[in-house]
Amino acid sequence: MNYITSSANPRIKTLSQLSKTRGRRQTGHILIEGSREIELAVRYGWELLEVYYCPDLYQGPLPTAPQSFNISREALNKITYKENPEGLLAVAKSKTITLADLKLPKKPLIIVLENVEKPGNLGAILRTAYAAEVSAVIINDQQTDLYNPNVIRASMGHIFSVPTVVANFETTKDWLNEKKIKILATTIDAAIPYTTADLTKSVAIVFGTENSGLSHRWRGSANQNIIIPMQKGIDSLNVSVSAAIVIYEALRQRS
Amino acid sequence: MNYITSSANPRIKTLSQLSKTRGRRQTGHILIEGSREIELAVRYGWELLEVYYCPDLYQGPLPTAPQSFNISREALNKITYKENPEGLLAVAKSKTITLADLKLPKKPLIIVLENVEKPGNLGAILRTAYAAEVSAVIINDQQTDLYNPNVIRASMGHIFSVPTVVANFETTKDWLNEKKIKILATTIDAAIPYTTADLTKSVAIVFGTENSGLSHRWRGSANQNIIIPMQKGIDSLNVSVSAAIVIYEALRQRS
Repeated sequence: MNYITSSANPRIKTLSQLSKTRGRRQTGHILIEGSREIELAVRYGWELLEVYYCPDLYQGPLPTAPQSFNISREALNKITYKENPEGLLAVAKSKTITLADLKLPKKPLIIVLENVEKPGNLGAILRTAYAAEVSAVIINDQQTDLYNPNVIRASMGHIFSVPTVVANFETTKDWLNEKKIKILATTIDAAIPYTTADLTKSVAIVFGTENSGLSHRWRGSANQNIIIPMQKGIDSLNVSVSAAIVIYEALRQRS
Repeated sequence: MNYITSSANPRIKTLSQLSKTRGRRQTGHILIEGSREIELAVRYGWELLEVYYCPDLYQGPLPTAPQSFNISREALNKITYKENPEGLLAVAKSKTITLADLKLPKKPLIIVLENVEKPGNLGAILRTAYAAEVSAVIINDQQTDLYNPNVIRASMGHIFSVPTVVANFETTKDWLNEKKIKILATTIDAAIPYTTADLTKSVAIVFGTENSGLSHRWRGSANQNIIIPMQKGIDSLNVSVSAAIVIYEALRQRS
């Protein structure tokens, strides 16, 4: 067992760099906080490199990793992301999932997000996606860093359990067409309510941003435009709310 | 017109105190930021006392108020809450809505929240509630300060359009019983999926917290316990997501 007592220990600096996009891109490593989150990462094939635990806070079983460190509370506070840290952290190898990696069921239900404005929203969508057995989440925004600590936390680790791919518009559209997956675009001016669309087939449901809605290119590429009905005086819901409403309607129709 | 150029102006101190619960409680005033939010407050009966605008940022029409102030960008930055301030602020008289104030339709759809952990979640629920014409939102947590700038912002002003009441468990339960409104409790171990419950009647749907679920007292007081089905391995959704799923199922059943 290795001990880290001082927050000046060089490993602490390395770890805190992993909480930034640049640090993750440079090293190809990610930082995972929390036992539930680490467990999900391991179960879904992420390879742990190091485990850090603070015995004051965490007394549970340690995940298996090539290296384990006993870390003081002072040192932990330098890198922890949560408000009430659980005292367990891991460094894992980053993993990129591409469209070609996806293993689809017979009638896939896919969520496409044009953009992710807030990590908290992506996290909430991933929780819903796991709960409702969504086949994959595809994000068109190339800037998205899936392993932002905020996304890991808000998803409660389901960023690891739900196949999540970053791919641009063209690639996504071509892949959906090739797989004969029907594209349903959610807009605020479509004539067809989401409840009357057939969500039992192979479908991909595309969501735009809360502010500007869905782009013209997706509207133009869709097999059907659908709408979530709203009372006059409001033109958008929180994107994680919109996604959940349509996802659970699909689940209802499919059951 | 009055001009405020210095951030040391005593009005600026008074305004920034209104962004804190204590300041709002002591004065009985609230601070509203953004033209859409102010417009909704006025439309739903909040009385404006003062309007502040920064001509560098805001050139739209000014809401009517006894006093208006032209405020410099420097002074605005001391009090603004938004990341990209719109340059329009108002002080309004606070207003407390009680259960007795509620005007209910024939078949009300009411949302009861035992607790509000995050202002962002309450805001998202209020947007959904307005969109789906929910009759009222009742919050059992007496600590909740509805006019937190975060709630106003996340609700996009719908804290003003949706009748929102803070009331304790006993008062809420007695009132629902008196009004013959059926109580549906959402739990993670109920046998009845929310889609098979009859949501077309007068109903109140009760949501607990994400961490600990619904309290025993609400479970015991419910006419029916309902569940949102989830894949094994997850036991909760974001509370604004859960609320939206059930609210929109009610809308579907009612239409």
